[in-house]
Amino acid sequence: MSPQNADEFAFIDWIRSQTPTKRGRIEIDIGDDACALSVAGQKLVLVTADMLLEGTHFDLSVASPRQVGRKAVAVSLSDVAAMGVSAAVLVVTVGLKRGSGVEFARELYRGMAEQADRFDVPIAGGDVTSWTDGLAISVTALGVDGGLEPVRRSGARLGDVICVTGELGGSLLGRHVDFVPRLTEGITLNRNYELHSMIDLSDGLTTDLRHIIDESDVGAELLMEAIPVSADARLAAERSGRSALQHALTDGEDFELLFTLAEAEAKRLLNAAPFPTTITRIGRIVSGGGLQLLDADGHERPMDIAGYEHNL
Amino acid sequence: MSPQNADEFAFIDWIRSQTPTKRGRIEIDIGDDACALSVAGQKLVLVTADMLLEGTHFDLSVASPRQVGRKAVAVSLSDVAAMGVSAAVLVVTVGLKRGSGVEFARELYRGMAEQADRFDVPIAGGDVTSWTDGLAISVTALGVDGGLEPVRRSGARLGDVICVTGELGGSLLGRHVDFVPRLTEGITLNRNYELHSMIDLSDGLTTDLRHIIDESDVGAELLMEAIPVSADARLAAERSGRSALQHALTDGEDFELLFTLAEAEAKRLLNAAPFPTTITRIGRIVSGGGLQLLDADGHERPMDIAGYEHNL
Repeated sequence: MSPQNADEFAFIDWIRSQTPTKRGRIEIDIGDDACALSVAGQKLVLVTADMLLEGTHFDLSVASPRQVGRKAVAVSLSDVAAMGVSAAVLVVTVGLKRGSGVEFARELYRGMAEQADRFDVPIAGGDVTSWTDGLAISVTALGVDGGLEPVRRSGARLGDVICVTGELGGSLLGRHVDFVPRLTEGITLNRNYELHSMIDLSDGLTTDLRHIIDESDVGAELLMEAIPVSADARLAAERSGRSALQHALTDGEDFELLFTLAEAEAKRLLNAAPFPTTITRIGRIVSGGGLQLLDADGHERPMDIAGYEHNL
Repeated sequence: MSPQNADEFAFIDWIRSQTPTKRGRIEIDIGDDACALSVAGQKLVLVTADMLLEGTHFDLSVASPRQVGRKAVAVSLSDVAAMGVSAAVLVVTVGLKRGSGVEFARELYRGMAEQADRFDVPIAGGDVTSWTDGLAISVTALGVDGGLEPVRRSGARLGDVICVTGELGGSLLGRHVDFVPRLTEGITLNRNYELHSMIDLSDGLTTDLRHIIDESDVGAELLMEAIPVSADARLAAERSGRSALQHALTDGEDFELLFTLAEAEAKRLLNAAPFPTTITRIGRIVSGGGLQLLDADGHERPMDIAGYEHNL
């Protein structure tokens, strides 16, 4: 549910266009963080799946199999978190590189189980096979709404405040294999505040915010000075020559929650600070399509992200 | 849910041993064709997932991407069929070899959709990513019981008749990428007959029958002359130098249904012939562990499958 680039996102659109009918059971369709279906007349089951591939999503020369297992489960749980519901069960398929050995497979599983145990979610089933290529892991997470309305990407409204959890950027320095999915935060937010839209940050703040504004048919303004730039983003900037802000705006795999809600709800939330994870107000939903970046004086800055540092 | 070899099956056992607690929501646990969980108090959702890997489960120099897509969906639907319930929804993750091209991805998806459409099952979501290694596809199928009791592997009883659908062996000559999962047959059987156990044949008749007898704590006798040997098994035998019967007994990926039921029910079923797919009575459940092969005179034949042709 987290396409890695524009081509893959277009492919999801194409899939959606292929099957206009027979989707009656599906209440929330492909293209959100999870899809939702009605199985027992009224209860919703939410389903999300992600595939992690060696070399693309993890590097076994840097990350241990236990870390990779933890990440594989965390990525799917993060999608459930972004719907604001509880995770009920996980189903895992693994393609092991032949010759990886039993201990490697066990460490991978221990990592998965550690992450699942953190949220009391059982790993209910799966499939293990082997081949000559690299490690491939697919994790499907099922969520249940528990009486809560799942929070979609498409509900952002004019005037909404845009908020984000945690700090952004530089995840590839290590956090991307060692993050705690924001399940607790997602449910707490959804239970106690009227959220209009939510997504987890897998592709980067600007890309994922574009998913919200495109699906909601609105625009957005981000306040440069408000973006919570992580220490890792600053470290990454020293190495890359790009700015720390640029890392915070564009780096993938933060796995924080990005959400929008009305001004009064946002004030109530920011005053309450209902959990230890920080929440930062970073912008607002405006009319018109597109995403604008504003400096401290309210002036628009160019959004050509690729060359962004030249404009600072 | 279809471990490819003994090591992987042992790994599933190990996974099961790791998580003795917190499995309250899971009504049928890892190790059956699907797991079942209760999400809405009483309704069961069944979940199964399989990963197909290039070079292990398909060969792109022989099979088209559309065939591979059809197979990927069919393999998971076959697991739902083996529970005797309906498939409700599919979730797909794909790891594409970089440079495969958009048309390759579309053909793969068209194949998936063709197979899903055959049974009116929507593809509800998924994830597409790419890497430098081969094509990896994971398909998760959700089933709903629809008021039927799912048929487990573990319910075989002494005196049960063992039956199988279709004809066996030689699947790798082509049928393994072009089979129709026995969903209709599985539901028809479960709705109209009191089945005691069922499994789909993914690893081969003798291996999958061993799963049933091990899980049910019984033994089994197979009647050599009764085994429905396919034309493909005979063709495979000409090429391999092994017997056609041996191919029928041991070849993987038949994706037929193997099930057991009481003598009177079996007679009723075989008389009724409730669908065009053939059903063959091939043996019976006996006491003691283990699997025996009987010749026409009722004499036991050695079950050393690897060297089996030497004894014929």
